[in-house]
Amino acid sequence: MERKVGIIMGSDSDLPVVQKAIDVLSSYGVPFEVHVLSAHRTPEEVKVFASTAREKGFGVIIAAAGMSAHLAGAVAANTTLPVIGVPIKSAGLGGLDALLSTVQMPSGVPVATVAIDGAANAATLAIEILGVSDDKLYRKAEDVRLKSAQKVLEKNAEIGRKFNTDIKL
Amino acid sequence: MERKVGIIMGSDSDLPVVQKAIDVLSSYGVPFEVHVLSAHRTPEEVKVFASTAREKGFGVIIAAAGMSAHLAGAVAANTTLPVIGVPIKSAGLGGLDALLSTVQMPSGVPVATVAIDGAANAATLAIEILGVSDDKLYRKAEDVRLKSAQKVLEKNAEIGRKFNTDIKL
Amino acid sequence: MERKVGIIMGSDSDLPVVQKAIDVLSSYGVPFEVHVLSAHRTPEEVKVFASTAREKGFGVIIAAAGMSAHLAGAVAANTTLPVIGVPIKSAGLGGLDALLSTVQMPSGVPVATVAIDGAANAATLAIEILGVSDDKLYRKAEDVRLKSAQKVLEKNAEIGRKFNTDIKL
Amino acid sequence: MERKVGIIMGSDSDLPVVQKAIDVLSSYGVPFEVHVLSAHRTPEEVKVFASTAREKGFGVIIAAAGMSAHLAGAVAANTTLPVIGVPIKSAGLGGLDALLSTVQMPSGVPVATVAIDGAANAATLAIEILGVSDDKLYRKAEDVRLKSAQKVLEKNAEIGRKFNTDIKL
Amino acid sequence: MERKVGIIMGSDSDLPVVQKAIDVLSSYGVPFEVHVLSAHRTPEEVKVFASTAREKGFGVIIAAAGMSAHLAGAVAANTTLPVIGVPIKSAGLGGLDALLSTVQMPSGVPVATVAIDGAANAATLAIEILGVSDDKLYRKAEDVRLKSAQKVLEKNAEIGRKFNTDIKL
Amino acid sequence: MERKVGIIMGSDSDLPVVQKAIDVLSSYGVPFEVHVLSAHRTPEEVKVFASTAREKGFGVIIAAAGMSAHLAGAVAANTTLPVIGVPIKSAGLGGLDALLSTVQMPSGVPVATVAIDGAANAATLAIEILGVSDDKLYRKAEDVRLKSAQKVLEKNAEIGRKFNTDIKL
Amino acid sequence: MERKVGIIMGSDSDLPVVQKAIDVLSSYGVPFEVHVLSAHRTPEEVKVFASTAREKGFGVIIAAAGMSAHLAGAVAANTTLPVIGVPIKSAGLGGLDALLSTVQMPSGVPVATVAIDGAANAATLAIEILGVSDDKLYRKAEDVRLKSAQKVLEKNAEIGRKFNTDIKL
Amino acid sequence: MERKVGIIMGSDSDLPVVQKAIDVLSSYGVPFEVHVLSAHRTPEEVKVFASTAREKGFGVIIAAAGMSAHLAGAVAANTTLPVIGVPIKSAGLGGLDALLSTVQMPSGVPVATVAIDGAANAATLAIEILGVSDDKLYRKAEDVRLKSAQKVLEKNAEIGRKFNTDIKL
Repeated sequence: MERKVGIIMGSDSDLPVVQKAIDVLSSYGVPFEVHVLSAHRTPEEVKVFASTAREKGFGVIIAAAGMSAHLAGAVAANTTLPVIGVPIKSAGLGGLDALLSTVQMPSGVPVATVAIDGAANAATLAIEILGVSDDKLYRKAEDVRLKSAQKVLEKNAEIGRKFNTDIKL
Repeated sequence: MERKVGIIMGSDSDLPVVQKAIDVLSSYGVPFEVHVLSAHRTPEEVKVFASTAREKGFGVIIAAAGMSAHLAGAVAANTTLPVIGVPIKSAGLGGLDALLSTVQMPSGVPVATVAIDGAANAATLAIEILGVSDDKLYRKAEDVRLKSAQKVLEKNAEIGRKFNTDIKL
Repeated sequence: MERKVGIIMGSDSDLPVVQKAIDVLSSYGVPFEVHVLSAHRTPEEVKVFASTAREKGFGVIIAAAGMSAHLAGAVAANTTLPVIGVPIKSAGLGGLDALLSTVQMPSGVPVATVAIDGAANAATLAIEILGVSDDKLYRKAEDVRLKSAQKVLEKNAEIGRKFNTDIKL
Repeated sequence: MERKVGIIMGSDSDLPVVQKAIDVLSSYGVPFEVHVLSAHRTPEEVKVFASTAREKGFGVIIAAAGMSAHLAGAVAANTTLPVIGVPIKSAGLGGLDALLSTVQMPSGVPVATVAIDGAANAATLAIEILGVSDDKLYRKAEDVRLKSAQKVLEKNAEIGRKFNTDIKL
Repeated sequence: MERKVGIIMGSDSDLPVVQKAIDVLSSYGVPFEVHVLSAHRTPEEVKVFASTAREKGFGVIIAAAGMSAHLAGAVAANTTLPVIGVPIKSAGLGGLDALLSTVQMPSGVPVATVAIDGAANAATLAIEILGVSDDKLYRKAEDVRLKSAQKVLEKNAEIGRKFNTDIKL
Repeated sequence: MERKVGIIMGSDSDLPVVQKAIDVLSSYGVPFEVHVLSAHRTPEEVKVFASTAREKGFGVIIAAAGMSAHLAGAVAANTTLPVIGVPIKSAGLGGLDALLSTVQMPSGVPVATVAIDGAANAATLAIEILGVSDDKLYRKAEDVRLKSAQKVLEKNAEIGRKFNTDIKL
Repeated sequence: MERKVGIIMGSDSDLPVVQKAIDVLSSYGVPFEVHVLSAHRTPEEVKVFASTAREKGFGVIIAAAGMSAHLAGAVAANTTLPVIGVPIKSAGLGGLDALLSTVQMPSGVPVATVAIDGAANAATLAIEILGVSDDKLYRKAEDVRLKSAQKVLEKNAEIGRKFNTDIKL
Repeated sequence: MERKVGIIMGSDSDLPVVQKAIDVLSSYGVPFEVHVLSAHRTPEEVKVFASTAREKGFGVIIAAAGMSAHLAGAVAANTTLPVIGVPIKSAGLGGLDALLSTVQMPSGVPVATVAIDGAANAATLAIEILGVSDDKLYRKAEDVRLKSAQKVLEKNAEIGRKFNTDIKL
């Protein structure tokens, strides 16, 4: 069975960051759902979503939130599906508050935390998780990785033409 | 009606800190209940406790937790009673993680945060909140404050006798 | 007796932040007073305000200040009314200075601290505190909470129409 | 095919922390391998391990390291298997250095970061990841979660007997 | 007129740190007074002390406090004598809270802040301030500085005898 | 003898911040000199300036610098005049680097540190230091303080007219 | 033999910072090569570059990267040439993540870390390192240092003409 | 000419950390001198040491200091030899103060900073710097690196025998 990725953001103002996850998943052709649900304003809906996620066909859940970012933890408290937390940067503390709120989870209820505003990587991690048992997805991820390396090497060549008289790399 | 104070800690290992809140409330003769409930391990029980707290006679809830300290926020998400958060210091980050997780709540769902490991002050704040509409409690709080000032002045006199040859204060 | 909320800011430059507290209180129809008083420039006026606040009909005091944010603590030192501290973000440290100055109060003199620039939540907390003994206010707060949840769910539906082909939530 | 969990630590001095991951995996009966490999002292072996991990039957890799904790990132750079990073606390900065070094990965190469010294959660997350396509493992994880909740509720009852005269929860 | 140095600590538990200031002042033979006064527990006494300090013969005031360290600021708010703040390290944040609370004063009300637990330097700074108009004290301070340099050079010679075969310094 | 205030900045790019000190000193009519000298680029000139400052008629030295802000410490190492350090905010760390570099001085060589970018307060502190033995300056400082309080109270009245229906303060 | 300086940046978006290193090296006439290579996207190329750098005539390698800045460490893991790390500031944490990732290297594999975005100093340090055995380069560095001091003194004179009536420095 | 390594520590209390640098240099048989010199207590001696270091046969200088760690910067201000800074951890801020004071140097005067308490790496870096023009030293450093890798692999084998039933690495 092909499993879906659930994406939850704590506020629709997080969409510009979350869009990067949507773009990555779309580029892989992996099915996903996007939701706006708040750990503090709609705790019941978060619980319902999380506790029924596996039976609804989700394989991984990405939760993005800022400040006292409880969303990923609140999801994780209600499912044993892998939950990926994306700390969102807000004014003032540069996202350190969201990072610590997301990553410092107590024993037994992990959140797989990625970088501040790292929604693209949350999606890539979701792909990698689904790819553990999906060879086709795994090969796509390998392919994307190769292309990403290729892009760096092209930039390297470009920079080299600009600055180096005799590159031997 | 005399309202109770609810005290929740995320783990029974937090009891040494939480005991200070218990001691303060006991000294005031204010009724209270103590619970061990985890936002991540027993989310349903936290929700039930919080959402029925007012009807059960609670006036204020104190929630103490460390690391990704979601407990106070999870309680606040399920009640509009005032919720006081006590960030618990754990190894490593000195409680900064718990402080930011507790205090940086989004609009609409406040947590009244006190100092790291500040359980005594959480109880005092609970007393002050109940004292808004309870003159007797208010006067007790004033009395406690006066005694606390008196203790400082006694220490001042003691230090003065030790170090100062001619204090004029 | 209906108790007022006192709002003090350390400088009139804090008004854009404090305005959010004013708006929340206004929306509840709760009476309030707004003051500009500085713990360092007008300590005597702060003391007079705080020490006479209860007899003047105040039930809660909100104090907003930045940097070495002593205002909430200076108010709390002169009253046993609940004092809510709003750390104001200023240039450089993103409000961490104001947060720590506000929240790390010594035993016996608590300040109920909310998020950096969290003036709206300070007002909501003030409402919750007054609501402990005011059923009408309590019900309004519950109502506001419900509406806030509703708004999130509307955003969720909107996002769902945009991104999801088959939402089942 | 049953996939193994690879555990790598940067130094054998990390074993006391890493042991918690070993214990969790053992309790699940999931096969695993433990290695001491350093991103800086044995980069070639890290690369070989990571790049051949999938074909050797690994499904997830846990990498634990302190200070400039590059180990998880170095593994992730050489595989598209999901990589879980455990920042190890060392003297001085309380693990903030290892946390930031582990979690702030660039786009395309995610590390699923858990709490500082959170090796037990790294193992739980590994189980959850394998459980996406392994119903038996998923049900075990659900069962462990239920038992963990039960333990909290037992502590709650115990604390209740000690402090509360009339609990109704 | 020979001016005294006032030393105030927020709690008598700060005495082990403050003792270093007492020792330095004693070694200079400068008159001083030591007090325990709390910005939050005895605000009135702090105000009285500060506002009458100059007329009572004080030339400088040293204020030492931890956590939300308002003491130096509260003194400075009530006098235009130079006020030296000593942030005291307490558990958890290593004194960063006290440092920021002490140093980040608003325009017009400065606190001359020294290092965390830097009571010895607070006394030295007080001596330097009094020495601006007191040549004898100034010369003593110069003399102490020379001796301190001499001690370093003696340690240097000692280390040199241990490790260096041919120092030429 | 009327003593001058020396102002040193580490780079002329610090002038916008330092200008606030110049303005305060000018408003007091206190003589001062302004210099651009770098602890790292012109160490010899810093040493000459500091070690001859007292004989040249300086009473206090203000040193403003950013990043690894050694300037105040380098001045303090070469004089026992009181040295006031102004940490300058630069990109990235918000001035925390300059604050810690300036304030955490070792025993025997204090730097009187003010807030990040707190040049105005550095000047006020310099005035207060000179005012210890200069009654006229002291009275001016008291006068400035009163006016500053008056301005706050005017703002308070203005805000009161805008928001309060019945202020009684 | 005249040794080259290798400059590697983790992404071509780092070029505006790295350009300052290029400018400094160009001004010295020291040969250099510039590359875009990523520790995470092109680990193999980083390894090849580093492990063959000495035989290709490099004497020092400068590596600039942001966030989980592993680049300098990954280079250092594959060469015993001196490696200079430049932490690049990115959004959010102001470069603290890159600084700690770069500087907190384990025993045996050092990275010579310079300031956040300190690419100019990385180049100067590279010059100083090459200058240890190259008297001509050493003298150029001394000359540059003198000119830099001269510029400060010119600024000092300029500021002096603007603000000081009688400078004697 | 064989160049010496100069080691300076700000206080002889830093010797336990600095000893690790001494041990590394001794193991290489590289000549070195050890000094106790303080940027703040003996600025003149620091200057003399630094400014004459090259002519006295030094090739690199290691400077270790804590708190407002100016020592490395003060040395670097007086020489264009490469200067390696070792931030020493002291109570409270875990060495963050010393790290920022050491690494955030202004343009033109770099300090090659290593990890907090990273004296061993300072010595290794000094060896690498001298090794740029000393093939024998370079080969020794390569050899040490290989042995360090070997030790890790031995630990890996040992851990493998303990935990793994079938390692294939």
